[in-house]
Amino acid sequence: MPETQLRVAMACEGCAGAVRRVLGNLEGVEKVDIDLAKQKVTVLGSADPNTVKETVAKSGKKTEFWA
Amino acid sequence: MPETQLRVAMACEGCAGAVRRVLGNLEGVEKVDIDLAKQKVTVLGSADPNTVKETVAKSGKKTEFWA
Repeated sequence: MPETQLRVAMACEGCAGAVRRVLGNLEGVEKVDIDLAKQKVTVLGSADPNTVKETVAKSGKKTEFWA
Repeated sequence: MPETQLRVAMACEGCAGAVRRVLGNLEGVEKVDIDLAKQKVTVLGSADPNTVKETVAKSGKKTEFWA
């Protein structure tokens, strides 16, 4: 399955939960894996990577593609 | 100055910072005060209260008007 990997500034489980919620309604997102220690968000599904990134950025957290 | 008071589920300073950032570009917002312990966000300025609430909700945090 296609995936998008992002580096997202998350400080706590509440931050991670917020990222999950903003992605919850996005079409083409099948699964969200969050590694809080690594600040890594992996999104599985056909959603456009730029749309995924912009959606996460709307949470107010610094967001960039995982290089 | 008019103000909007919200109850927002924030767990850490990172959560509070995210709320500040999403409000940062909203027209009519002059000042944002956040009391993390009370889970209270006070927004000073002429911005429409419903718009303020919806903007904060986009951060993925549970948001309601402070009763």
